[in-house]
Amino acid sequence: MPAELKELNEECGLFGVWGNPHSAAITHLGLHTLQHRGQEGAGIVGLTPNGLRRHYGLGLLSEVFTKPEDLTALSGRAALGHVRYATAGGRLLENIQPLLFRFSTEAMALAHNGNLTNALSLRKALEDTGAIFHTTSDTEVLMHLLRRSPASTFTGQLTDALNQVHGGFAFLLLTEKGLFAAVDPNGFRPLVLGTLPDGGTVVCSETAALDAVGADFVRDIQPGELVSITDVGVTTQPYTLQTTLSVCSMEFIYFARPDSEIHGVNVHQARVAMGERLAQEQPADADIVVGVPNSSLSAALGYARASGIPYDLGLVKSQYVARTFIQPTQALREAAVKRKLSAVRAVVEGKSVALIDDSIVRGTTSMQLVRLLKNAGAKAVHLRIASPPLRFPCFYGIDIQSTHELMAANHTVREMRDLLGADSLGFLSTKALEESVNLDPTAPHRGLCVAYFTGEYPTPLYDYADALHKELAQLHITVSEVSA
Amino acid sequence: MPAELKELNEECGLFGVWGNPHSAAITHLGLHTLQHRGQEGAGIVGLTPNGLRRHYGLGLLSEVFTKPEDLTALSGRAALGHVRYATAGGRLLENIQPLLFRFSTEAMALAHNGNLTNALSLRKALEDTGAIFHTTSDTEVLMHLLRRSPASTFTGQLTDALNQVHGGFAFLLLTEKGLFAAVDPNGFRPLVLGTLPDGGTVVCSETAALDAVGADFVRDIQPGELVSITDVGVTTQPYTLQTTLSVCSMEFIYFARPDSEIHGVNVHQARVAMGERLAQEQPADADIVVGVPNSSLSAALGYARASGIPYDLGLVKSQYVARTFIQPTQALREAAVKRKLSAVRAVVEGKSVALIDDSIVRGTTSMQLVRLLKNAGAKAVHLRIASPPLRFPCFYGIDIQSTHELMAANHTVREMRDLLGADSLGFLSTKALEESVNLDPTAPHRGLCVAYFTGEYPTPLYDYADALHKELAQLHITVSEVSA
Amino acid sequence: MPAELKELNEECGLFGVWGNPHSAAITHLGLHTLQHRGQEGAGIVGLTPNGLRRHYGLGLLSEVFTKPEDLTALSGRAALGHVRYATAGGRLLENIQPLLFRFSTEAMALAHNGNLTNALSLRKALEDTGAIFHTTSDTEVLMHLLRRSPASTFTGQLTDALNQVHGGFAFLLLTEKGLFAAVDPNGFRPLVLGTLPDGGTVVCSETAALDAVGADFVRDIQPGELVSITDVGVTTQPYTLQTTLSVCSMEFIYFARPDSEIHGVNVHQARVAMGERLAQEQPADADIVVGVPNSSLSAALGYARASGIPYDLGLVKSQYVARTFIQPTQALREAAVKRKLSAVRAVVEGKSVALIDDSIVRGTTSMQLVRLLKNAGAKAVHLRIASPPLRFPCFYGIDIQSTHELMAANHTVREMRDLLGADSLGFLSTKALEESVNLDPTAPHRGLCVAYFTGEYPTPLYDYADALHKELAQLHITVSEVSA
Amino acid sequence: MPAELKELNEECGLFGVWGNPHSAAITHLGLHTLQHRGQEGAGIVGLTPNGLRRHYGLGLLSEVFTKPEDLTALSGRAALGHVRYATAGGRLLENIQPLLFRFSTEAMALAHNGNLTNALSLRKALEDTGAIFHTTSDTEVLMHLLRRSPASTFTGQLTDALNQVHGGFAFLLLTEKGLFAAVDPNGFRPLVLGTLPDGGTVVCSETAALDAVGADFVRDIQPGELVSITDVGVTTQPYTLQTTLSVCSMEFIYFARPDSEIHGVNVHQARVAMGERLAQEQPADADIVVGVPNSSLSAALGYARASGIPYDLGLVKSQYVARTFIQPTQALREAAVKRKLSAVRAVVEGKSVALIDDSIVRGTTSMQLVRLLKNAGAKAVHLRIASPPLRFPCFYGIDIQSTHELMAANHTVREMRDLLGADSLGFLSTKALEESVNLDPTAPHRGLCVAYFTGEYPTPLYDYADALHKELAQLHITVSEVSA
Repeated sequence: MPAELKELNEECGLFGVWGNPHSAAITHLGLHTLQHRGQEGAGIVGLTPNGLRRHYGLGLLSEVFTKPEDLTALSGRAALGHVRYATAGGRLLENIQPLLFRFSTEAMALAHNGNLTNALSLRKALEDTGAIFHTTSDTEVLMHLLRRSPASTFTGQLTDALNQVHGGFAFLLLTEKGLFAAVDPNGFRPLVLGTLPDGGTVVCSETAALDAVGADFVRDIQPGELVSITDVGVTTQPYTLQTTLSVCSMEFIYFARPDSEIHGVNVHQARVAMGERLAQEQPADADIVVGVPNSSLSAALGYARASGIPYDLGLVKSQYVARTFIQPTQALREAAVKRKLSAVRAVVEGKSVALIDDSIVRGTTSMQLVRLLKNAGAKAVHLRIASPPLRFPCFYGIDIQSTHELMAANHTVREMRDLLGADSLGFLSTKALEESVNLDPTAPHRGLCVAYFTGEYPTPLYDYADALHKELAQLHITVSEVSA
Repeated sequence: MPAELKELNEECGLFGVWGNPHSAAITHLGLHTLQHRGQEGAGIVGLTPNGLRRHYGLGLLSEVFTKPEDLTALSGRAALGHVRYATAGGRLLENIQPLLFRFSTEAMALAHNGNLTNALSLRKALEDTGAIFHTTSDTEVLMHLLRRSPASTFTGQLTDALNQVHGGFAFLLLTEKGLFAAVDPNGFRPLVLGTLPDGGTVVCSETAALDAVGADFVRDIQPGELVSITDVGVTTQPYTLQTTLSVCSMEFIYFARPDSEIHGVNVHQARVAMGERLAQEQPADADIVVGVPNSSLSAALGYARASGIPYDLGLVKSQYVARTFIQPTQALREAAVKRKLSAVRAVVEGKSVALIDDSIVRGTTSMQLVRLLKNAGAKAVHLRIASPPLRFPCFYGIDIQSTHELMAANHTVREMRDLLGADSLGFLSTKALEESVNLDPTAPHRGLCVAYFTGEYPTPLYDYADALHKELAQLHITVSEVSA
Repeated sequence: MPAELKELNEECGLFGVWGNPHSAAITHLGLHTLQHRGQEGAGIVGLTPNGLRRHYGLGLLSEVFTKPEDLTALSGRAALGHVRYATAGGRLLENIQPLLFRFSTEAMALAHNGNLTNALSLRKALEDTGAIFHTTSDTEVLMHLLRRSPASTFTGQLTDALNQVHGGFAFLLLTEKGLFAAVDPNGFRPLVLGTLPDGGTVVCSETAALDAVGADFVRDIQPGELVSITDVGVTTQPYTLQTTLSVCSMEFIYFARPDSEIHGVNVHQARVAMGERLAQEQPADADIVVGVPNSSLSAALGYARASGIPYDLGLVKSQYVARTFIQPTQALREAAVKRKLSAVRAVVEGKSVALIDDSIVRGTTSMQLVRLLKNAGAKAVHLRIASPPLRFPCFYGIDIQSTHELMAANHTVREMRDLLGADSLGFLSTKALEESVNLDPTAPHRGLCVAYFTGEYPTPLYDYADALHKELAQLHITVSEVSA
Repeated sequence: MPAELKELNEECGLFGVWGNPHSAAITHLGLHTLQHRGQEGAGIVGLTPNGLRRHYGLGLLSEVFTKPEDLTALSGRAALGHVRYATAGGRLLENIQPLLFRFSTEAMALAHNGNLTNALSLRKALEDTGAIFHTTSDTEVLMHLLRRSPASTFTGQLTDALNQVHGGFAFLLLTEKGLFAAVDPNGFRPLVLGTLPDGGTVVCSETAALDAVGADFVRDIQPGELVSITDVGVTTQPYTLQTTLSVCSMEFIYFARPDSEIHGVNVHQARVAMGERLAQEQPADADIVVGVPNSSLSAALGYARASGIPYDLGLVKSQYVARTFIQPTQALREAAVKRKLSAVRAVVEGKSVALIDDSIVRGTTSMQLVRLLKNAGAKAVHLRIASPPLRFPCFYGIDIQSTHELMAANHTVREMRDLLGADSLGFLSTKALEESVNLDPTAPHRGLCVAYFTGEYPTPLYDYADALHKELAQLHITVSEVSA
């Protein structure tokens, strides 16, 4: 797969407000609750009396918005905010969203969460007819399609554009006329609607962000839906009728906040259920259950409940950001790595530990955790993973590395156990994952996308198909279901 | 009490290394683990081939040390680091430690954790004979006493000085000859000794910082002990024989890391024990037990275990630092305040919740937590505090506000329950606290200082005595035990 | 005239290198010498082994390039740099040049000095066919025209584009293949070619920048010329044959450095000549001649030489940038304003002073200078301006305010004298200006553009024509020569 | 001479206000005019309603005071400011002045311009009796002496202290009671008194700073004088009667602003006179006279006037601060060095140039200037220096390098001419210098200190005497007048 393709993969957080005089302050507040969805950069566009104004930068929200004026300059009756995920390369300021387009007669701000599978071919076709792109992200494609649409109305142009892009996306678009929200036909990426008690409508990535600003949850935006929020009110229309619910399962496994609900399912409780099913499918002869803080504490609780083994706090996570410099010795390098997590010797010493983690990507973290517990005196470490083995990359917006780097794509469970130094290793089955979340019993995979585990991508992969097939062929994996 | 006295109250973290070529890097690493002990400022002094060199500043370690050169400039065979607690006023750069004293013929660095009860009168007496102070902290007093001592040896001068200061302290002093460590005669503030596998000795505030740098724990430094670490080795001598162990109980209640051990007692397990005793003393008719993250999770676990009520994650804490600006509306102000913690509606809705917190100072946070849970649908909130009511200020290094601001000094438990909006409220007894920690069964209060709860200060209060008596008289509290 | 039009007016400095391994360092050095041409922002694009890389920002070069890595990241065999003038509004980071365009298959950097008179209509036409602009500057128009050209070669496309834009411009365009330079058909803006002793070609705005990097001057780039610098060598071709030399006279009057030469005329000597002619046309009964530092010292020297009146240093200019805050009193506000210049009382006290300035725009500075000298004891101040009255705006790249703000467009010389508080006031004639510079005796106005003084714009004004006519009508000025 | 001694040498600027509600803003404004006296750091202490408050930092004023709050936090009825010179090593934040001393019952701010010759021995003696110093500058000595004085009044203590320090100094001391100013018994360093039209008294280093804030000049503070400015008024008293005027001649030669007057002599006019005498003593067969901008323009004007040779602007100085990185090639390194100054080829080509400079220290700059002019085509360069050869170090506050680095201490004039590449070289005589300034015809050397040229130090040198004698012995210089 070409290097520049990987750069496009990203996960992000969106937050938009229409019709409240404190839109910029509300958006700033709401984005803080979505900070876990992106730490590379942040930006807010405010609809001020002087038109759309933007403040943005690289880094955390607290690094980008450093003084009250940064926010008051955006004050007005609507705002659109974005936090962006840290990808390996390409920390370009130009890519920080919302993108702001200044036309001669109007301006528009665009924010995107997800990844388009045909962005590269669309971009090439557009450039061949003179289009100039200013970012390396795929978000900009939508604006070019919109501006070139022959449709006579704005929502007509937007519908046109939405039908040409494929993959996983939640889009928010702000103009002087309204705030427009759209979700891909599979609903890969979540997007919810809320109302503010003192007036105004909110659209954002997670319900936790509604709670954070005191907004009331109204509903999830549905696959293939285009919502227009203007001074007239909130109207909706499907931009396509060919939809199937397949929410990204990684949102439930580790990405979303435990206090969020996606299509009616609370994330914490889904994780507790995964832990319970994991205890049934992969029991362990352990004295205590320890979860990896903070993402795996829910699953660990479920595991403890279902197994009857006591839950304890055997690992402590530092609350402070550490700035790591190059360490002079190997011992210090290892020390620096584990600085974020440390073991409580008094808890684990002499114990057989069931260690619950949400997933294994490259395996490096898991290896350190096993060693950490053993160094602290654990008699045995039984590693239990509350999701199935990750064997396939994601093209819908989660930055999961190429198969070459996925431990489970290259090793059997037994090999992984030995490499990680665990006394035993067990994963949750895909079926149990689907039943634990249970989004929609009538939909394929009960409404989840489980492609990372099974290779069954719910849509064609367009620009990514050839590269993926080559990669899988090298790994001798045959996945008949992979589309082209 | 005069305003300038309050400024002196502080809690801090210390980390020193002698005899390792990577002392500065190790100190930087170790201080990260002590960051919870102080976020106002940080500094490191390194013993370089060109003598003592210092880098320091206001803010978190990651804000003060921003590039590798900040650290490499301090490289040498010894180092001394300090993190300082954020007090209300007086964020003066001059106060950031270690203090570095450059004399014509030598240099010394001094770092301090604690609070001296006779600093003010010592300072006045010293100024009357021409001494010039350059900070507003009480740390500097020790150096003036040391320099004016007629003793013929350095440790003799230090012993002289240590016998003149009173209160709670752990001191680390670095010269070109050695690293010197001393603890007050009551051992209010912890200080531990360790060794590095590749050579060198470490002294620091908590054992967790030893673990973080791969050092082996040797022992706690004892009350009244002066340890000299030089190229000859580690020697010890008592600078006074009149000692009584009374470790600050707030270290166990909320201050120290759960993975640290103080005089042989693991902090997490002490907290679990407090929770268990709390369940016995203050049972609750609840469906679930919820702890306030992260400091009260251990006690909540203990409460759940002893009561048999299921433990659940009903509150979520944000991992990101939020920069708070002034919010335009009351609703947003409240939203901003609770941004750090949010309730998991799916967990608490319709439930009777036993909410476990470590302590109540002013009561503002507790009030918000009760409201947060009720807004999320909790049927009832039974607030259980894993420590006794805080009714008296601390003069040994914990920045507990004056009695005027301590909720429990001004209200009965029943009044507090009503003000906080809780359905019931219960505190741990002092006796149960002492037994839960059980530092030394033969010492008064089993080796703990419980003055904040009972007013029984284990030492005279010197400069603070008069003001405290006046304050207590206003509150109609008579504490015969309060010394003068 | 619409507000957004004014924003486009700007003066800038360009510097490009092709074929030297230290291109980025040379460009950085060269831009310092052009810093007077733009202080709003600066940027450099380097052709590195990994393609075009950019570093840019708001502020002075020393504020934008703050560490060696900023520059080494741009290292390679070619570079393009730009400094941008501070205009009233619109300090947008997006507008800082060189603009960097990343296409799927290649990348290009574009830098521009000047102002296009038909940018607005071109932009509207382009947007109507789907073009998306990312800056509010007119520079971007050229790239859109180039990308949409049907020509088969790159220089063919560039020629196409250059023939569609009108006004004043010097363009530098860097690709992986070469560095391309073009000047408008009137040569309003200077651009010169040089060679480096250790290899490589330089193109930049002023000869002083060639001197600064040790490059040898080759020649001025001619009106209507397109120069292509590639690994094959330097080739040239006219993109149009309809050319007339009319160099912006403000370059000679105050803008360019005294050590630069434009089309063979040294700027300092041209200014000395203006001063000499001014002495003949506008003699003064003065004891000493004082020039306004630093731009008017050359003209003052000429005035002194021709008049025989002694030249003296009656005004001192501060070398340091002052950061001005709002001053609490009127007296301090005035003091703050004059901080940059102060009078030498010992020189001017009791003297009749001939004060030589290069030009009068709004008149505020002149008024302060007259008052400054009188407060320092000058008996009389005879203000002599080494250029004709500025009565018309510039549309070719000098940010001269609209006629409403030009003092000479709204007042007679006698009125101006009274408003400024001078004892007498005299301007240089347009004819004398033209003869002092004497660029090309055979060209109209001897090769200068004198539109600011006479209203005789050497080209049609396109998008600006209507607004200018309306403005002039309000001022009851009829300028038959103004084109449309 | 020990390295740490050199660090103490410094030149600085002082500005204090008493009795004006805008004291901090006035001080900030006034310091800008003194910025040439120190660029290493800056600080202001304001007497606010909450006592003395300080803002200070490393760098230029514009880097230290970056936002209005920096200044408004210092608002009150008095203020004291300082700019500090950049010395080779030791850019310690602790050394930035005014020093602020916080005592238990009061606070004081102290600022100093000059250098004490017995600071080291005083410091050692003070430390031996327990004093703790917090800076490496000699300023702090005064405060220790003051605090240890047995005198019963504050001015009595100050008088005591002033009589114990020796060397060159102007001190400003701010307390809640008043502003106190003192000058050394020789008046080496200038200090002037002024009044503000809207109330209040100003004391500062140069009269130009009075002009800049609109204050009226009252008088120079005399050698051995102690001025007390309080709400009662301005009172004066001699702290010693043993005084001789010997103002540092470097103030007139290059240090002070041309628009300042010192003891009644305007600096610009003194420089013109030096240039005139230079023309008489050291005529040159030249076509034009060129001064090194900006410090030597006055002398060049004098040279031109007296010689009749035309004055021209053959050198241009950049107005912008350049940030210099390490240059990759020797050619670029040279280019970077000369970036501040460039030659005007059109002026100097084919000409014999009389180049006027104020002084030669190491000779590096002069060498570059000669080369610069020759590279620009100058036929000959006759270097004329408007001061005598610098052969002896200064111990009164000018950071003139040790004799080892003074070109004239190690070479004859003929050797210097050859090393510099000049066609001829001539210096002003000491006698002509004294007569050009002519401060006080009855005083030794007409009121100037000319020790740098003759070795006749007007005071004993205390701590510096031995080292200087050793140095001079190595150079085989016998100066009988050098005191001990």
